[in-house]
Amino acid sequence: MLPNLRTPDGHDHACAAHCNDLPTPALVVDAAITRRNIKRMADYAAAHGLRLRPHTKTHKSKRLARLQIEAGAAGLTVAKAGEAEEMGEASADILVAYPALDPARVRRLAALARIASVRVAVDSGTAIAALAAAATAARTKIGLLIELDVGLGRTGVGTAEAALALAQLASNTEGVRIDGLLCYPGHIWAPAAAQGPLLQAVSARLAGAIALWSSHGFEARIVSGGSTPTAFQSHEVKPYTEIRPGTYVFNDMNTVQGGFCTLGDCAASIICTVVSDAVRGQVVIDGGSKTFTNDVCIPAPDSGHGCIPKYPGARLIRLSEEHGQVDVSNCEKHPRVGERVTVIPNHICPCVNLQDAFWWCEADAAPQAVPVDARGKLS
Amino acid sequence: MLPNLRTPDGHDHACAAHCNDLPTPALVVDAAITRRNIKRMADYAAAHGLRLRPHTKTHKSKRLARLQIEAGAAGLTVAKAGEAEEMGEASADILVAYPALDPARVRRLAALARIASVRVAVDSGTAIAALAAAATAARTKIGLLIELDVGLGRTGVGTAEAALALAQLASNTEGVRIDGLLCYPGHIWAPAAAQGPLLQAVSARLAGAIALWSSHGFEARIVSGGSTPTAFQSHEVKPYTEIRPGTYVFNDMNTVQGGFCTLGDCAASIICTVVSDAVRGQVVIDGGSKTFTNDVCIPAPDSGHGCIPKYPGARLIRLSEEHGQVDVSNCEKHPRVGERVTVIPNHICPCVNLQDAFWWCEADAAPQAVPVDARGKLS
Repeated sequence: MLPNLRTPDGHDHACAAHCNDLPTPALVVDAAITRRNIKRMADYAAAHGLRLRPHTKTHKSKRLARLQIEAGAAGLTVAKAGEAEEMGEASADILVAYPALDPARVRRLAALARIASVRVAVDSGTAIAALAAAATAARTKIGLLIELDVGLGRTGVGTAEAALALAQLASNTEGVRIDGLLCYPGHIWAPAAAQGPLLQAVSARLAGAIALWSSHGFEARIVSGGSTPTAFQSHEVKPYTEIRPGTYVFNDMNTVQGGFCTLGDCAASIICTVVSDAVRGQVVIDGGSKTFTNDVCIPAPDSGHGCIPKYPGARLIRLSEEHGQVDVSNCEKHPRVGERVTVIPNHICPCVNLQDAFWWCEADAAPQAVPVDARGKLS
Repeated sequence: MLPNLRTPDGHDHACAAHCNDLPTPALVVDAAITRRNIKRMADYAAAHGLRLRPHTKTHKSKRLARLQIEAGAAGLTVAKAGEAEEMGEASADILVAYPALDPARVRRLAALARIASVRVAVDSGTAIAALAAAATAARTKIGLLIELDVGLGRTGVGTAEAALALAQLASNTEGVRIDGLLCYPGHIWAPAAAQGPLLQAVSARLAGAIALWSSHGFEARIVSGGSTPTAFQSHEVKPYTEIRPGTYVFNDMNTVQGGFCTLGDCAASIICTVVSDAVRGQVVIDGGSKTFTNDVCIPAPDSGHGCIPKYPGARLIRLSEEHGQVDVSNCEKHPRVGERVTVIPNHICPCVNLQDAFWWCEADAAPQAVPVDARGKLS
């Protein structure tokens, strides 16, 4: 009945020995792997003179955020105002990498800006006006990073000229301060060795905007980029001054299948109980879409809903809300009803977001419940 | 800036007039539509002599469960022990339509069985033994429904003989009581008018098991079935004594696109703010996969991640965690940055599960926050 998360490279999760009594599904986090992941990224950033500002959307935990700060992170990244308020307790330097502009959100961010450094990424005059009005009303200032779209096509202005226009607008607006540029190269899932040309294109877009700004008297003191798949190649994007990877703290099947880490670097996994084997060639585990989410594995969309290291032939092929159907027809042996199996999810961030707490597992110690402080902070 | 959820059949959500100040994304529930949905199902069940036992996974709210009970529901259905504990406060008659068997779960269910009627659906001897041991230790009894697979291929024994074998096993086991049979026809998404032959097959499977049980002295006092798509055809499955629909309380794009209700029957929707229009032909709303989930619309898998009634040409084509990318290239007019838009999700159940509370909207009254009591009850 051991969860038995021995990865192919021989690492035994600390969780394996002490998690037999946890109610399932149990999100367990190996402390040693987490610390190693945190240190590796901090060391990389330090070696290349980059400030590290981890995106806390992955763990949503103040305790984990403090570990990242202690390891050298310069500040924290969030998406929502509620996350900013929580993470403001772990760091006094918060970046909202999200175009916050609705009235409730800008009011809360302005309140936080009275006691912490708050910067917000924007791509519209509407957002600048909303943030400026809230900051002015709160008698504070909010820093702005103008977001430049570098290929994802999600948010961010498309041209250096548009980035300049927003900088000019902001420079004439009370309550806000232009601090630099931000991009999110989330479209890059190429293997690290093949990222060169893609990252050169990112560099060129940023350099163009920086040059245009400079010719009009604007300085991009901060140029913020990064994402876990591109994180360890960030030094190839010369304009970057800081990076914002998130998933690296835990990793998941997205980062494994993308070739950005090994299974042994996956710190977070979910222990499930097999609850049925009534249908031939299949077992059912007690985690479904309300545990794993229906996020596909981006680099391997046909690989199912997660990896079960102990049963390499097993495939988690279908989720309903509380059931995970595992095809075991290609397994020599398969788990029995009542057995516990450990699953590494496709995308760890939304899985953590479904939990009130995760189990923090140090070697030879009972697991500790760590609150997911910013869970449910949707606005 | 009105959310403006006027549906094509002319209904204005109660939410429309009073929700302008809610922080977005805001899950709003129209009280009148909800009550109408609850009454319609209760009336249908009463008219056909069926007991109604709503699955509370959809709303996870004791307040909504009490409305269902007040409208005539005979008891409540849940999937997990934590849900059973919460819903045990709304009804003393709880069915766990899930093969609960791990130690923590059966212990909690046995504790609840001391103060309420608790029945559990099982499909293995392991589950029977685990529940029996826990019930015996708690000096109580747990009722069992043997689950028969009627075509979904998820859980449930495949033959009448296997159902009989489990009944025989249970009848020789202290702590449990055989109460009947359960099935889940979740494979049936055919339009109501075309469900006849599929439901006849369900009837035949159930009738076969009932006859075999009868010839061995076992009575299926309860025969539990149902699901929202088949709910209003449940009278065609003669063996049913009760049904367990869940989604009908709110409805969603799954039930609309399946032809089981109209947009005007959708009680729950999510108000979002447009946060970016920097990319041509697209706007971005402040709800992503952490608000809508990546569940596809089962009857219309290419329809995107939800419906925006006010902008019929708009398609919510891509979600990241906190961003929803809306293709507006086919819209004559499109929402501007800062505007609020209302979205009906594909699958409402996991969306509710992401919220601590939803906004309950009576006509001409300020929205009230209703806690999602059983959110996060994964075990």
